Amino acid sequence: MDIGLLGGTGIEGKGLALRFAAAGAAVFVGSRSEERAAGAASQYNEILGKPLVTGCSNPDMLARCNLVFLTVPFEHALSAIHGAVGSFRAGQILVDVTVPIAFHRGRPEFIQPDAGSNAELIAQQLPAGIDTVAAFKTIPAHVLADPQTELRCDVFVCGDSQSAREKVMSAAGMIHSLRPVDAGELQMARVLERMTLLAIHLNRRYKQKGARFIVQGI
Amino acid sequence: MDIGLLGGTGIEGKGLALRFAAAGAAVFVGSRSEERAAGAASQYNEILGKPLVTGCSNPDMLARCNLVFLTVPFEHALSAIHGAVGSFRAGQILVDVTVPIAFHRGRPEFIQPDAGSNAELIAQQLPAGIDTVAAFKTIPAHVLADPQTELRCDVFVCGDSQSAREKVMSAAGMIHSLRPVDAGELQMARVLERMTLLAIHLNRRYKQKGARFIVQGI
Repeated sequence: MDIGLLGGTGIEGKGLALRFAAAGAAVFVGSRSEERAAGAASQYNEILGKPLVTGCSNPDMLARCNLVFLTVPFEHALSAIHGAVGSFRAGQILVDVTVPIAFHRGRPEFIQPDAGSNAELIAQQLPAGIDTVAAFKTIPAHVLADPQTELRCDVFVCGDSQSAREKVMSAAGMIHSLRPVDAGELQMARVLERMTLLAIHLNRRYKQKGARFIVQGI
Repeated sequence: MDIGLLGGTGIEGKGLALRFAAAGAAVFVGSRSEERAAGAASQYNEILGKPLVTGCSNPDMLARCNLVFLTVPFEHALSAIHGAVGSFRAGQILVDVTVPIAFHRGRPEFIQPDAGSNAELIAQQLPAGIDTVAAFKTIPAHVLADPQTELRCDVFVCGDSQSAREKVMSAAGMIHSLRPVDAGELQMARVLERMTLLAIHLNRRYKQKGARFIVQGI
């Protein structure tokens, strides 16, 4: 399986690249700068001990991968989508992992998107034929990016296309000790994005860094 | 410890009465009807095998208990508070467990309260000196009400008064296999109330009834 990362040189991209590569996927780290992408890929491959990750421009990544994760920080999500929108092809799946939270005087605040959630806002920017799926929103990036940490949690996946959702769940299910959970339609991202606010709060309250969720009873 | 239930004759009241009584608390089931309260208490005591629960009017319950759980269905929450507001005393803690979700054509929908969350709306109705805490919002009532089911989950507790929050956490921590988690200020109820929407969805998707949450990593 080919996994593409749109803007994959940050911590979220690093985490997904390491986890998917370790699970046997070919990972393509896209960036606006080919050089930065190549540098990130080389860093990830060093951690992995094998050349499993390839760096390339975002358009080259989009020409190659059908499952594409948007891995830029939230404040760059819209511009990253707008910069790449001409390179998308019908049939691709965009997985939004961004969360509309900003820090105001050191305090995390939820930035209410007009569309209801950031995932729904992203979906509105994409041409017909591209399915948007929200996933990985509640899993701390630096937990993903630390291969020594067992995930032992659920990854909530939601989107309006059931087949796209199932493809993302199937990909996420390859990752060790991560359970994909079908969270239904894309608007459930309104819940998932807010859960990240709770997780950030709990990290601060309990002086931890890796608060994440497991659903008991399903 | 004395636990009061404002409107405690429904399934949520039954669940909290059984769990708190089993944990060693004296439980006072309040109702608008003393007769209904007595009937419910007698039913709960039969399940418990011991006379640990007392039925009484809501004002009698409020005269006795400092820790009071609002256990009516969401659609009756405001009227229950308005009906009892004259009986509250400064220093009492009201624990709101209600969730603003209604079923529209069989589909659960989140009813956005103007105050941000139902817990914040309830807090606005109470006189000064009464602290509002939100808790138990993400735990299915019928799981609480089935003593055969081990809870094995977290109970998120939030409220603007730290001492009130700690009292509720301490009470909830008496319940077997339930971990109290400090979720911070009352406005975190905006997240908790929405998490219940996710839990209801997951129950339907996975044909279960007891979806509830555990936080990993804290």
